[in-house]
Amino acid sequence: MRNIKLVLEYDGAAFFGFQRQPGKPTVQEALEKALSAFFDHPVKISAASGRTDTGVHAEGQVVNFRTGSGRELSHIQRGVNAYLPSAIVVKSAVEVPADFHARYSARSKVYEYRVWNSPFRAPLLAGRAYHVPFRLDLAAMRKAARHLSGRHDFRSFTSEAAVLKGRSSRKVSFTRTLRPIRIKKENGLLVFRFEGDGFLYHMVRNIMGTLLEVGRGKRQPSDIPSILKAKSRCFSGQTIPSCGLTLIKVFY
Amino acid sequence: MRNIKLVLEYDGAAFFGFQRQPGKPTVQEALEKALSAFFDHPVKISAASGRTDTGVHAEGQVVNFRTGSGRELSHIQRGVNAYLPSAIVVKSAVEVPADFHARYSARSKVYEYRVWNSPFRAPLLAGRAYHVPFRLDLAAMRKAARHLSGRHDFRSFTSEAAVLKGRSSRKVSFTRTLRPIRIKKENGLLVFRFEGDGFLYHMVRNIMGTLLEVGRGKRQPSDIPSILKAKSRCFSGQTIPSCGLTLIKVFY
Repeated sequence: MRNIKLVLEYDGAAFFGFQRQPGKPTVQEALEKALSAFFDHPVKISAASGRTDTGVHAEGQVVNFRTGSGRELSHIQRGVNAYLPSAIVVKSAVEVPADFHARYSARSKVYEYRVWNSPFRAPLLAGRAYHVPFRLDLAAMRKAARHLSGRHDFRSFTSEAAVLKGRSSRKVSFTRTLRPIRIKKENGLLVFRFEGDGFLYHMVRNIMGTLLEVGRGKRQPSDIPSILKAKSRCFSGQTIPSCGLTLIKVFY
Repeated sequence: MRNIKLVLEYDGAAFFGFQRQPGKPTVQEALEKALSAFFDHPVKISAASGRTDTGVHAEGQVVNFRTGSGRELSHIQRGVNAYLPSAIVVKSAVEVPADFHARYSARSKVYEYRVWNSPFRAPLLAGRAYHVPFRLDLAAMRKAARHLSGRHDFRSFTSEAAVLKGRSSRKVSFTRTLRPIRIKKENGLLVFRFEGDGFLYHMVRNIMGTLLEVGRGKRQPSDIPSILKAKSRCFSGQTIPSCGLTLIKVFY
């Protein structure tokens, strides 16, 4: 059996998230259907980020799957793209060692969250950036962001459901390591770049919601350490919309 | 009466072009409706590029209109934006001299045409760039583009209907002056920047169609002078889709 790794781009607005759900179009369903049609045998994939929400985009989602087929990689890429809906594309297909697993082999992931910060909306960024019409104190946001880099228990920044689910299984850890969050400003567009060894459910969106509250002056940068310490979702900010979020790259 | 100039951004996919048409949503209709509702009197606008097609986007379309209202400019901008559909926004509102006319006062306009050049589609550029899956000879395209800058009769690059319409009115000129066409390449994305004192109907799309045929080797850069000389639509390339086209800026 060959182990094949695909890198995918997709428009999250076209799907109800990544993971299969009965009766709803998802990335996993579209991809497994296309792969199974191309190879003429059932294909199951594993994904680097298999739990991404409805609306989250990807420039570099990674999946792998096994097949006995000897088809050339370039034919696989071209053929699977022909079976996929236009909102997904296979950007590359390579053969990887048998023990490669898109999720468990990942060393780190990069997400970007885009904020359009202007009193007025930007129609050409609709669905690709979250519109924040309020003045933001970027210096305070950068200060707050510095408290989040490094190794922390990020339980305060995931959903309560994820924590409850974790409690039933002793092995679950909420500790993750984040690199310094990079914030780029190009006119009204703010791009927040997160790189870490892993991300909890809703983690980027909850961190972003909290940073935006700091930017609006509703919280202080110095509040972040106590939010982390609290280990409770009650202490962090809002979950902001998924449209501004893109999975950029997975490192192995 | 005050003369007010607005700069607009809009997503062309949401409208059947700029100009009013019975029974179809157009930018002009949406804008005049919003202005009339805000001012509580009928408002008619003049636009810098009032004939742009269905699907053409704008980052900097300019219109002007007259009103007797004394409302502050910042209130006008905010209020009109509240009445507009989300696919349009007023980016700025300023008061201009009585003789300012969005179309006739324009000195030059800038359009950009975006091409995604890769064997595979880019879902995150869908509706914002035209996908060309063939290998393009960029050097040949640049050479061809150089023949188009300067003052020329561009009749070969407008629609036959526009030429026929022009014939019935003696005053119509097909002569325009183009600055050197700038071509930028960022990975697979090619951005063609056109600046000129005016553009004929379909001119950018027909020039782009011709340049792409040069890029594919179907025409030579040296064919351009004879296409210009022919003064007939039969000699130029295909009209390529409007989704890649954006009106960037109007200079006065």
